[in-house]
Amino acid sequence: MATATEADAMRRALALAARGLGSTSPNPVVGCVLLDARGRAVGEGWHQRAGGPHAEVSALCSAAEAGHDVRGGTAVVTLEPCNHTGRTGPCAQALIAAGVGRVVYAVADPTPAATGGAATLAAAGIDTEGGLLADEATAGNIAWLTSVLSGRPYVLWKYAATLDGRSAAADGSSRWITSAESRADVHRLRAEADAVIVGAGTLRADDPHLAARGWEDVSQPLRVVVDTHATVRPGARVLDDAAPTLIAVGEDADTTHLPGVDIVRLPHEGTGLAVDALLAELHRRGVRSVLLEGGPALAGAFVAAGAVDRVVGYLAPALLGAGPAALGDAGIATVTAALRLGITDVTRLGPDLRITAAPTAHAPEES
Amino acid sequence: MATATEADAMRRALALAARGLGSTSPNPVVGCVLLDARGRAVGEGWHQRAGGPHAEVSALCSAAEAGHDVRGGTAVVTLEPCNHTGRTGPCAQALIAAGVGRVVYAVADPTPAATGGAATLAAAGIDTEGGLLADEATAGNIAWLTSVLSGRPYVLWKYAATLDGRSAAADGSSRWITSAESRADVHRLRAEADAVIVGAGTLRADDPHLAARGWEDVSQPLRVVVDTHATVRPGARVLDDAAPTLIAVGEDADTTHLPGVDIVRLPHEGTGLAVDALLAELHRRGVRSVLLEGGPALAGAFVAAGAVDRVVGYLAPALLGAGPAALGDAGIATVTAALRLGITDVTRLGPDLRITAAPTAHAPEES
Repeated sequence: MATATEADAMRRALALAARGLGSTSPNPVVGCVLLDARGRAVGEGWHQRAGGPHAEVSALCSAAEAGHDVRGGTAVVTLEPCNHTGRTGPCAQALIAAGVGRVVYAVADPTPAATGGAATLAAAGIDTEGGLLADEATAGNIAWLTSVLSGRPYVLWKYAATLDGRSAAADGSSRWITSAESRADVHRLRAEADAVIVGAGTLRADDPHLAARGWEDVSQPLRVVVDTHATVRPGARVLDDAAPTLIAVGEDADTTHLPGVDIVRLPHEGTGLAVDALLAELHRRGVRSVLLEGGPALAGAFVAAGAVDRVVGYLAPALLGAGPAALGDAGIATVTAALRLGITDVTRLGPDLRITAAPTAHAPEES
Repeated sequence: MATATEADAMRRALALAARGLGSTSPNPVVGCVLLDARGRAVGEGWHQRAGGPHAEVSALCSAAEAGHDVRGGTAVVTLEPCNHTGRTGPCAQALIAAGVGRVVYAVADPTPAATGGAATLAAAGIDTEGGLLADEATAGNIAWLTSVLSGRPYVLWKYAATLDGRSAAADGSSRWITSAESRADVHRLRAEADAVIVGAGTLRADDPHLAARGWEDVSQPLRVVVDTHATVRPGARVLDDAAPTLIAVGEDADTTHLPGVDIVRLPHEGTGLAVDALLAELHRRGVRSVLLEGGPALAGAFVAAGAVDRVVGYLAPALLGAGPAALGDAGIATVTAALRLGITDVTRLGPDLRITAAPTAHAPEES
């Protein structure tokens, strides 16, 4: 059984791990706290970016730099220490070499190449325990765990609408339905995502920039435009150099007006592109989490494909009575076929309400 | 300054007053607690129905029956004691005759015929103070106060929708978008309202019964159907004898198939009936609060007429992507013309969310 001190250390490790959201893909976020033999926290670290040191090594370095002895101590880690040599060495070996006597982790590593760290530690005589605060750690790494288990990026669909479900007025105007607080929160979601996806209709209507603003030191998400017929204009803001951009077009689209633009050709599906093919391409490029920003037709295609893992709705207390809905046709004809969700969070943001929900039959299994 | 004991008594009086919601119209809800000269609560009462004893008289009776002496004591009342003789005698005179030394009330009575009670009490040498817990008392009597100040019933628009704002699926099915908990809450709203209004489209689609179920001893609301072309069938459930029913039709509608049905003829407006004329007719009949249940066209007409005082939305965590919106055309063409509301309450009801909001520029003034 883990001690109260170890649980406190795990909570700290989870907070450290969260600092890496948006910058570690294709790796998970991981945090680590080192306790010495007397139970005092003497080192901590987190995984900051792919190719950089893992959380355990970062924590060992911080303890060593401060002159602390971790021999006989405990490593508290949010994810099972890895067992493989990738761009960095295996963390299990580093912990063994450092002489810790115990390792407590929250969630097992489901990756075939990295798994087995706990067994390696145990074989080296280290007291090893998994499962401490596993639910919290699963939630904190939900995008990475989902992508590992499903082989596609985790998809968060974000929408903004009035109380009566309109994402714009009858004349197409939508600035600003939601408050400044809500819009700032959307920039946080962008900063935490590896990629942001919009449809060509949204591009034509709003000419959005899609970069994350107002958050320092963020790694900008890949901007993805689903543009079946390659209608994006060369001067669109989304093509500036603030962040990388990928334009997904149909197999037969004419893209001669877009020299030098990163373009991927995908099969058609219905009136748009195949969602599964798009997500497979993004996964291939190391994208583990996606923020889907719409518009309604694209969101409908993702819902129809069963490719929405979480919904974040920003509801403004306003009524319009006309105008496009936030979600378009998703192939659902009758009420018993509705996609049922469970609300996981409700937060007031200035005058608005942010509602977070996830499909009830789609919760990722604890790994 | 009111004492803490008086504030406690006022909270009790507010709770007593709320028991009358739905059964006192055209009168307000009122509660009263009597304290004896030593500050002990020795009597209480509330206004239960129009024509029955007022709260002050009811409280005086309860004290007298228990053999308590209220001379030199304090009457704590949620509304300024009335000064006129209606179906019952003036409460101010009853309190003077009972010999109370002090009267504390929350909200002044804005009715021309009833106002002046405080002045009468003061002229009789009674220490009189108004304004204690006035905000709470205003909220508790909001329907009656609004109707007195505006000359029409207070209108609460209730809707049920998915997260993406659909009140039914593409095939028209809507049972059940929201949970049993939400539907039970709607019956509470019906029980608290003097009248429930639906449009003919809702009648055709759902054949609703519209009575308040599951709440004992409620006075059933008047069921009102806005049926411009008199399409209601004689066997409709809304015409049974569980509660009175009023059918509002256009001036030229043929109603020969509805013998014995209470019918009111109203002027046309747009594709429906004039909302103002409907509300004036209901006000004339003593209706002080209305629960507007839809459908979307009728709700749009009420919003367009500026006749929505509060919105209660039951949001189910589900996505449909198609189907009718909860609110239809309200004459709003652009986002700057949206009806802006302020959220006053957010409550989880089973899996659903109940959001209560009121127009921000339409809050009734404290009276």
